[in-house]
Amino acid sequence: MDPVRLRDLARQLGAELVGDGDLLVTGVAGLEHAGPGDITFLAARERIEQLAGCPAAAVIVGPGLEADRPALRVADPYAAFSLLLSRLEMDPDRVFPPGIHPTAVVDPTADVARAVAIGPYCVIGAGAVVGEGTRLGAHVVLGPEVTVGRDGFLHAGVCIREKCRVGDRVILHSHCVVGSDGFGYRPGPAGLVKIPQVGIVVLEDDVELGAGTCVDRATVGQTVIGRGTKLDNLVQVGHNVVIGAHCAISAQTGISGSCKLGSGVTMGGQVGLADHLTIGDGVKVGAKSGLHRDTPAGSEVFGYPALDAREAFRVASALRKLPDLLRTVARLERLVGETHESREEAPE
Amino acid sequence: MDPVRLRDLARQLGAELVGDGDLLVTGVAGLEHAGPGDITFLAARERIEQLAGCPAAAVIVGPGLEADRPALRVADPYAAFSLLLSRLEMDPDRVFPPGIHPTAVVDPTADVARAVAIGPYCVIGAGAVVGEGTRLGAHVVLGPEVTVGRDGFLHAGVCIREKCRVGDRVILHSHCVVGSDGFGYRPGPAGLVKIPQVGIVVLEDDVELGAGTCVDRATVGQTVIGRGTKLDNLVQVGHNVVIGAHCAISAQTGISGSCKLGSGVTMGGQVGLADHLTIGDGVKVGAKSGLHRDTPAGSEVFGYPALDAREAFRVASALRKLPDLLRTVARLERLVGETHESREEAPE
Amino acid sequence: MDPVRLRDLARQLGAELVGDGDLLVTGVAGLEHAGPGDITFLAARERIEQLAGCPAAAVIVGPGLEADRPALRVADPYAAFSLLLSRLEMDPDRVFPPGIHPTAVVDPTADVARAVAIGPYCVIGAGAVVGEGTRLGAHVVLGPEVTVGRDGFLHAGVCIREKCRVGDRVILHSHCVVGSDGFGYRPGPAGLVKIPQVGIVVLEDDVELGAGTCVDRATVGQTVIGRGTKLDNLVQVGHNVVIGAHCAISAQTGISGSCKLGSGVTMGGQVGLADHLTIGDGVKVGAKSGLHRDTPAGSEVFGYPALDAREAFRVASALRKLPDLLRTVARLERLVGETHESREEAPE
Repeated sequence: MDPVRLRDLARQLGAELVGDGDLLVTGVAGLEHAGPGDITFLAARERIEQLAGCPAAAVIVGPGLEADRPALRVADPYAAFSLLLSRLEMDPDRVFPPGIHPTAVVDPTADVARAVAIGPYCVIGAGAVVGEGTRLGAHVVLGPEVTVGRDGFLHAGVCIREKCRVGDRVILHSHCVVGSDGFGYRPGPAGLVKIPQVGIVVLEDDVELGAGTCVDRATVGQTVIGRGTKLDNLVQVGHNVVIGAHCAISAQTGISGSCKLGSGVTMGGQVGLADHLTIGDGVKVGAKSGLHRDTPAGSEVFGYPALDAREAFRVASALRKLPDLLRTVARLERLVGETHESREEAPE
Repeated sequence: MDPVRLRDLARQLGAELVGDGDLLVTGVAGLEHAGPGDITFLAARERIEQLAGCPAAAVIVGPGLEADRPALRVADPYAAFSLLLSRLEMDPDRVFPPGIHPTAVVDPTADVARAVAIGPYCVIGAGAVVGEGTRLGAHVVLGPEVTVGRDGFLHAGVCIREKCRVGDRVILHSHCVVGSDGFGYRPGPAGLVKIPQVGIVVLEDDVELGAGTCVDRATVGQTVIGRGTKLDNLVQVGHNVVIGAHCAISAQTGISGSCKLGSGVTMGGQVGLADHLTIGDGVKVGAKSGLHRDTPAGSEVFGYPALDAREAFRVASALRKLPDLLRTVARLERLVGETHESREEAPE
Repeated sequence: MDPVRLRDLARQLGAELVGDGDLLVTGVAGLEHAGPGDITFLAARERIEQLAGCPAAAVIVGPGLEADRPALRVADPYAAFSLLLSRLEMDPDRVFPPGIHPTAVVDPTADVARAVAIGPYCVIGAGAVVGEGTRLGAHVVLGPEVTVGRDGFLHAGVCIREKCRVGDRVILHSHCVVGSDGFGYRPGPAGLVKIPQVGIVVLEDDVELGAGTCVDRATVGQTVIGRGTKLDNLVQVGHNVVIGAHCAISAQTGISGSCKLGSGVTMGGQVGLADHLTIGDGVKVGAKSGLHRDTPAGSEVFGYPALDAREAFRVASALRKLPDLLRTVARLERLVGETHESREEAPE
């Protein structure tokens, strides 16, 4: 990042300048990683103690927060910090050079004319459509009749299989696979027989899928990822799953077929859902949990098998006392045995 | 799907027509997703109650089952339903256009002449062989001396490393990796030293690997996936593992090196096996289980660490009672303490 | 492997020949898989009993170990065995044919001249650098300003995003993704808002990443994998993680953002770490563990939630006794209840 004076940052962010406007800022970092010369931010009042130990040269603060060093006061510090970060991103034209690369194999019936960038060695199938403003990196493969909306970013190596539909402003990270066959077999005389997976995947607007994430096509019908939902890396979504809007699902989580998630569901990493579950709006699932039952809206669950979070913590805490409990009960058995014997021996 | 009259479907499936043959069927769906206009199926008598609430226009039923709407009676409803689905699949010639794409880099010593399709940007190494009827999607990479049998489907982005052997009718989904190095190191004076992984992978006939699945080559010898075995997405198979025939292994499961699985083993998602285990024929492993011991044929296991399923459920059920048990025992301690004291104080 | 006489192997390995030097060796295998004709090895004295049942024709042994068949005596049998295996590896020039393939798209400002091999369909971005002796397989994608050091192997399909830095002798297996966006969002009025991920990834010298493994770029600053550290397949490393030197992390493990691991940490498969943890030097983490707390150097932990290994085993062992414990305590309650009642009824 080029060094910039604090007063200039204030102007760029529309912030109120507090303190020395000539201060030179040379970097941007979150509170825990910030060094001298950096500007950082405080998102909420309760973190002002952490600021004391932080060597950052300047800080972005919210209304009503006193800073102990040169600062920029804004309505939303987190958003202002994000805006600064976006200035440090590599120019998209450098990551995804504009134009349709001459090596891209584009079916004559595909429509990619409005895309900003189709990278080297992309393969775009018959009848596929890529919307205005969208950028494809190298080696992206769109199968026949795939549609991708506007202003999207498909990173190198993404594969989207035939007939799947991707909305606007969708971001797909490297090597994710959309529309692979669901894991469907029926028993046959000579072993498992594959059930054709003839449905599709629909990714609604503003969805983001992490690197290596896999979303399977439906057996029939649609596997749906709802508007604004974000999946981390190496997540697995089985056939006929329907995920609502604005969910956040962390890395390596797996959602078995035909699950139905409401909106605003959040899951930690390495969570597993059995098939055919209904998970209500706003459910929060702790990392590594295993869900095998429907979960009502608003629940917080944790564990394997997953329980309501408060019960799960009680159980986990009790579990550590179990070895001692065994010894205590053994001792009680002896004592009660003696009492019982002595009562039998010595009549009242 | 083009609308089709029920009598025409009956003829196509070799089914007995029951009811109105002029009924127009406009879609196909499983029982839970079927809407008006769809044809669905009933696989077993016990589900006839579910049919009552289903809006499907028609249903495929088995012998001896009374339907409450126009129906097609067949010997095997599941198979007939599957056959209908296969009619809805995109023509393979559209997904994998026939011919060797001019951009495919095929070593002069490779033999791919009998393949139906070699897609854009495939890279086929020296001495590799692709059998009759097999189709490769875009960007498939076969290393030197890789052999792939007949009638296979290798989806976009599949990588098979040198010398690995793939049988007939094998289906590999996008981005799976066959023959990557096993995770083998030995301690050295300056850190871990890589042990060369010089073995291969053998995928027998009718194997299917899901998207992103990784099967490591053996240190020496072979990592084997047996005939008819199906692996879901993002599964990891370590070096020198031998998996028998007709197994079904769900997503994100990991099998450490040198494990030996019999035939007909089924595993849920996110299962983990420690290394060097022997798992007998027909073992069923519940999702998220962690196996650390040999498991005899026919067992059903569950949990982490995995136990026989019935014991595992007893333990999981007992676990929820543990917080109360701690309180109960504390109370018993007090009561027994009083009894004990009073007996000491008040001689008989 | 071409058959070779034992005396010739002795000469190649600088070993002391014991027994019949004319013996023809036709293969190499570890103790458990060795067959007649093979040469195997014994790494430590305590395994001499296993050798008795092994049909191998010859064995590599260490100093002071008596063999029961023709043998090669060396200072370090494991290293000698490894050296033999390396003779069985396919010539790197056959796996990664030397030269810059004419189909590689190399930006004019990239510097790859010293690389040994740039495979078909590689895409090398503006300002990228590939060091001397390094080999890239087919379809490798290096983003703008990526630097890769010397003597590395990047297998087919590897993706490294803009500005990331890869050291010397780094091995990246197929389809791993380096520098994908970290999973970072902030709440906004219309849903989650993406936080730009503007940092990079640094892979130090001698790092190896398995197939499908993903290492996310930092929000700001660096995600670091330390010198000599080895990650297995399908591992996830979140943004701003710092991993020390000489760690070994097994398949499908996930390390959440901002964790800090010391050196020499080893983790089994499917381990999960919550975010912002500090894990000290030499910590050993058992497979499938879930860590949610800082872990001091030298600890051995296991379980979910992870506990010190000895405690974890006590708890796991006690857990199996829990169903019986419930019955025992119920019985005690009845007995104590009777005692208590009889004491109340029958005054002393």
